[in-house]
Amino acid sequence: MKFLMEHEVKEILEEHGIKTARCKFVESEDEAVDAAREVGFPAVPVVMKVASRKIVHKSDTGGVVLGIRNEEEVRRAFRRLMAIEGAEGVNVQPMLEMGIEVIVGVSENQQFGSVIMFGLGGVFVEVLQDVSIRLLPLTRRDAVEMIKEVRGHKLIEGFRGYKGDFNALVDLLLKVSKVVEEENIIEMDLNPVFVYEKGYAVADARAVVGERKSFRRKLSRDELFRLFYPESVAVIGASRTVGKPGYNIVWNLKQHGFTGKVFPVNPNADRILDYRCYPSILDIPDDVDVAIIAVPARIVPEVMEQCAEKMVKGVVIVSSGFSEEGEVGAEYERKVLEIAKKNGIRVFGPNTTGVLNTDNSFITTFAKMPVIKVGKIGIVAQTGLFLGIMMAHVATNHPSIGFSKVVGMGNKADVEDYEVLDFLLDDRETRVIGMYVEGIKNGRAFYEVSKQAKKPIVVFKSGRSIYGQKAALSHTASICGDDEVFDAVCRQANITRVYSFEELFNVTKAFSLQPLPRGDRVALIHYTGSGCVQGADAIYFSNLKLAEPEKETIERISEVTPEWHMVNNPVDIWPMVEYNGIYRAYDTAITALLEDDNVDSIIVAIWAGVEIAEPTYSPDFKKIKEYGKPIYFVVEGMREAVFETKNNYELNEFPVYPDVITAISVLGKVTDYAKRLFRE
Amino acid sequence: MKFLMEHEVKEILEEHGIKTARCKFVESEDEAVDAAREVGFPAVPVVMKVASRKIVHKSDTGGVVLGIRNEEEVRRAFRRLMAIEGAEGVNVQPMLEMGIEVIVGVSENQQFGSVIMFGLGGVFVEVLQDVSIRLLPLTRRDAVEMIKEVRGHKLIEGFRGYKGDFNALVDLLLKVSKVVEEENIIEMDLNPVFVYEKGYAVADARAVVGERKSFRRKLSRDELFRLFYPESVAVIGASRTVGKPGYNIVWNLKQHGFTGKVFPVNPNADRILDYRCYPSILDIPDDVDVAIIAVPARIVPEVMEQCAEKMVKGVVIVSSGFSEEGEVGAEYERKVLEIAKKNGIRVFGPNTTGVLNTDNSFITTFAKMPVIKVGKIGIVAQTGLFLGIMMAHVATNHPSIGFSKVVGMGNKADVEDYEVLDFLLDDRETRVIGMYVEGIKNGRAFYEVSKQAKKPIVVFKSGRSIYGQKAALSHTASICGDDEVFDAVCRQANITRVYSFEELFNVTKAFSLQPLPRGDRVALIHYTGSGCVQGADAIYFSNLKLAEPEKETIERISEVTPEWHMVNNPVDIWPMVEYNGIYRAYDTAITALLEDDNVDSIIVAIWAGVEIAEPTYSPDFKKIKEYGKPIYFVVEGMREAVFETKNNYELNEFPVYPDVITAISVLGKVTDYAKRLFRE
Repeated sequence: MKFLMEHEVKEILEEHGIKTARCKFVESEDEAVDAAREVGFPAVPVVMKVASRKIVHKSDTGGVVLGIRNEEEVRRAFRRLMAIEGAEGVNVQPMLEMGIEVIVGVSENQQFGSVIMFGLGGVFVEVLQDVSIRLLPLTRRDAVEMIKEVRGHKLIEGFRGYKGDFNALVDLLLKVSKVVEEENIIEMDLNPVFVYEKGYAVADARAVVGERKSFRRKLSRDELFRLFYPESVAVIGASRTVGKPGYNIVWNLKQHGFTGKVFPVNPNADRILDYRCYPSILDIPDDVDVAIIAVPARIVPEVMEQCAEKMVKGVVIVSSGFSEEGEVGAEYERKVLEIAKKNGIRVFGPNTTGVLNTDNSFITTFAKMPVIKVGKIGIVAQTGLFLGIMMAHVATNHPSIGFSKVVGMGNKADVEDYEVLDFLLDDRETRVIGMYVEGIKNGRAFYEVSKQAKKPIVVFKSGRSIYGQKAALSHTASICGDDEVFDAVCRQANITRVYSFEELFNVTKAFSLQPLPRGDRVALIHYTGSGCVQGADAIYFSNLKLAEPEKETIERISEVTPEWHMVNNPVDIWPMVEYNGIYRAYDTAITALLEDDNVDSIIVAIWAGVEIAEPTYSPDFKKIKEYGKPIYFVVEGMREAVFETKNNYELNEFPVYPDVITAISVLGKVTDYAKRLFRE
Repeated sequence: MKFLMEHEVKEILEEHGIKTARCKFVESEDEAVDAAREVGFPAVPVVMKVASRKIVHKSDTGGVVLGIRNEEEVRRAFRRLMAIEGAEGVNVQPMLEMGIEVIVGVSENQQFGSVIMFGLGGVFVEVLQDVSIRLLPLTRRDAVEMIKEVRGHKLIEGFRGYKGDFNALVDLLLKVSKVVEEENIIEMDLNPVFVYEKGYAVADARAVVGERKSFRRKLSRDELFRLFYPESVAVIGASRTVGKPGYNIVWNLKQHGFTGKVFPVNPNADRILDYRCYPSILDIPDDVDVAIIAVPARIVPEVMEQCAEKMVKGVVIVSSGFSEEGEVGAEYERKVLEIAKKNGIRVFGPNTTGVLNTDNSFITTFAKMPVIKVGKIGIVAQTGLFLGIMMAHVATNHPSIGFSKVVGMGNKADVEDYEVLDFLLDDRETRVIGMYVEGIKNGRAFYEVSKQAKKPIVVFKSGRSIYGQKAALSHTASICGDDEVFDAVCRQANITRVYSFEELFNVTKAFSLQPLPRGDRVALIHYTGSGCVQGADAIYFSNLKLAEPEKETIERISEVTPEWHMVNNPVDIWPMVEYNGIYRAYDTAITALLEDDNVDSIIVAIWAGVEIAEPTYSPDFKKIKEYGKPIYFVVEGMREAVFETKNNYELNEFPVYPDVITAISVLGKVTDYAKRLFRE
């Protein structure tokens, strides 16, 4: 690591085409006078600054002298500056014309590597914390977005005599990105930079060069394939006792209908359920692809040695008692990892529910799990218990939501999030990936894999606040990192960020069932006027547009409504239902909007249950699917009727939400993803 | 209305003790020179400004000359300013020392009357829209809050050489509040005001005086009492045909067990259900307190005349076809109102589901309605269909939530929101009021009633965005008003604002069942580590504090957990459940936290259903209630088990939420209410 002095930094910047207030580094009064003359003095006033690798805030120590106009002042300033403790010399530079003050900073993030920060100077950064952040390197779009993201950017667009050169600023950010990569910059501060109507100039700069943090990235799709698609599985620690984890694992494999061979391992049993039992994995007469390990932590290293001997390709360690339970457990974990590395065995866990693959019904979970519907959602979650519980919750509360693969990561001793993410991105059965994370171990790899994704990735990250970070640390020793950086990662990699488990399922469901909208113009059909008002608000606040249907569309819908009723978007469908019945009303409105080129997506709210509108409306799913335009439904009403209707709709691939605000908020996230995707 | 000139405004302000840069209004060069001398020139430089009732933005027209130091400059400036079109004279004032620039504005709002706006000048107001708003008159607390609410207030607290006199600013706002009341100010702009380390000075000012908007307020508790507690009810338009609205009304009265007399009116029927039928209301041999009117709109005026003759005290008009359906309907509505006013009949609706009173089982709804549980929540909702539907939804999905009175307001031709609100605030059976509103007709009355409330009021207002406002206008012709003003109303009147129907029920439920927290320190018990992390985040983002339990509390809980497990808040209870069973684990942790003075409220998450933790935990409700400390529960798990468990808990007066984030967000709102209440 090497701290560069201002003139050194500016030299490097200039070499890369970045405009600076070039400064001369001088070590004597006479040199100072010469330097002042060289930069234009006395016509141009000069600034003199103390030069030191030790002084970060020059102004605070009186290390900056402005507006110097004659030789005597130069000499006096030099003497004063050299008297400052730590002074190594003095920089002389022409005094810049004032412009809009901005700040560009570069630093290294533990999880994600080089990060760039941009903000307007003065109150914007210091009072309002009005900054934007991105990972390096930047694309042009990143640079444009990060400038527009700060609230104060209106000053650059022009305000009260201020105006800044937007394009020059974009250029500056892109060049900084390049400098960081090429010159091994670990840390850099350009503060302030003056932005003018034409161009800009870096007034002050400091930097640290050195070895930048590097991140390895394993390509492990084939290795993971074997863990998801084993032909034969050993369950080490299988149990005959109903309800025990070692029993449940075998029960789940049988109940879900795992397509491969199952070999329970237990020295004290002959058979477990329908399967023949073996005293040890070494006694199994067949090859074993994957071992599910459910024995106490202290025995696991020994079992791992046997797995190695048996040439097992992967293991899922469901047992707890490892690093999450203190030092003794951490030692077991280290041993396990060592054996795994030596023998090329990939490990899920420990302390995890492991894998659920609905494609071959492979399941390693130790709690009895209802059969999960086959579908297109892949799930990766940090913690095992949470995931197990949530999948049981989903299976009973939302039985119509289908999954391709579900993975509980546990302690992530070996296999990491980004590897599973990469595997799922390549998996034919998976259309969208939902993730729950607290800390991300190798954030840079996660970012790079995400950035290349051709499928939507939806992430619920907790550990966002100081409270949550503390709780995560005591829970899985996860380092959560800076939430603002993670936000930047999501924007740059077009990751959809959500803020609850429910939202994770709501959004992945939409992605998995419906096509992407081609634009942001939304039509809404609701059976109450209030629903229309609430929905219109939600459209606005979800950054969508209220579609303006074609004249013909309004006319078509108006044919089924009473004369006094003015049709509009949102469509208040109640008068139509009263006058023409539920089928004619909804069918007419939905078809008209599907055929309207001014409409990109449709939200339809219906009531399920007796008395208000009977029977419950059910569209011609096949027909409305043909238009290839996304429709999300809202079903409200009586508890059982809602449940049945929702299941019916979702089995027909139309997602259902409990209220119009939720549905539109999901559509907002999906549309945002689509807009960024299509823009690329 | 009269526009005041700068010197007139400043005179008024000075009379009320507000410090201004006093200016002299002059009409000749000589007067100008005298005035300049008077204010301190040539020692103090002066500012001269064009004086005109027509010119609002003086700077834009070159109407301000700064830094005038000698007589010649005074004369030249005078001539230049008088040449500006519309000039009536010139103001001469001493040039002020620069300070922190702030803006104080007063205007009149259609719904709520006088409103005051505060912001920092320059980029803060114009680029960042960083302003705060309150209704006038202000209390000291309002003034303090509105200064602290703007993001730029840190400048006043002290930043980079800036510092402003906070107390002087509070004083200024309070005095402005007084001026507006006493001088009949309709509009006023103090812009800029310079705030100094000591004191402030109003540099420029304009104002309009005139007749301020006045708001009537009816006191109608007794009148409304008769509408909620009739002893006899006529159903005009009662029907024998099953499923018709006129049938359902009678069916509901019977099914819910209305305690008064019921007289169906239908010339073609002898009996409907168990009740004897009459050809007209005039044929009923008994007194009639309330008539429920369900005949077509065009007949309603005639029916109203009959009601007047029968000396009916109130009517609920459930029929639609009035002002919401255009001009013809609006004419019917006017006639109805005229008859009502003349005869002292109070009217709910038209176009409404009307009243539901669980105290006497009085119900006027025209859709078959499941019986609603008796409880302490009062609901007022703008629209009838929406309310009817939502109550049916609540009755089947959340049968454990209890209500006192539920009112659908409909077109609000006569009875308005604030009257019902006022009635419910006085109603013994009601502990909390939940409201759904789009537009508020008499906002000032609503505000004043709310401000005096001794019960929590929770409001879901839609029509917040331009889209929603347009939809509301076409739906009920409601003027929604400015959302920022409504936000100010909520803050000033300690109204809890929510953003969905679900949230309205979640929050009113908590208020209705549990005591208020005495502070903001929250303890959380969760059965997964991830739940703890998510909950900790939610505590942070809900503006709550993570409680720091006493040492003794941690020790007590640690006794039931394995040695490796470090107990902390949030309490990850899973290891305790595994080692000591669900009852010992939860009972120990809950009791310890209830007895801890560092804990103000507790969130407890449990799992309901088989396999993960059996049996489902159920606390000793009576015992934990005795502590008088709020506990909210989170129940996740298998669908039916969750439903049953939730109902069981809530019937025992402990509210249940579907996830930890929702529960904590509710607690955040309740705690915010309590903090404001206790501070008063």
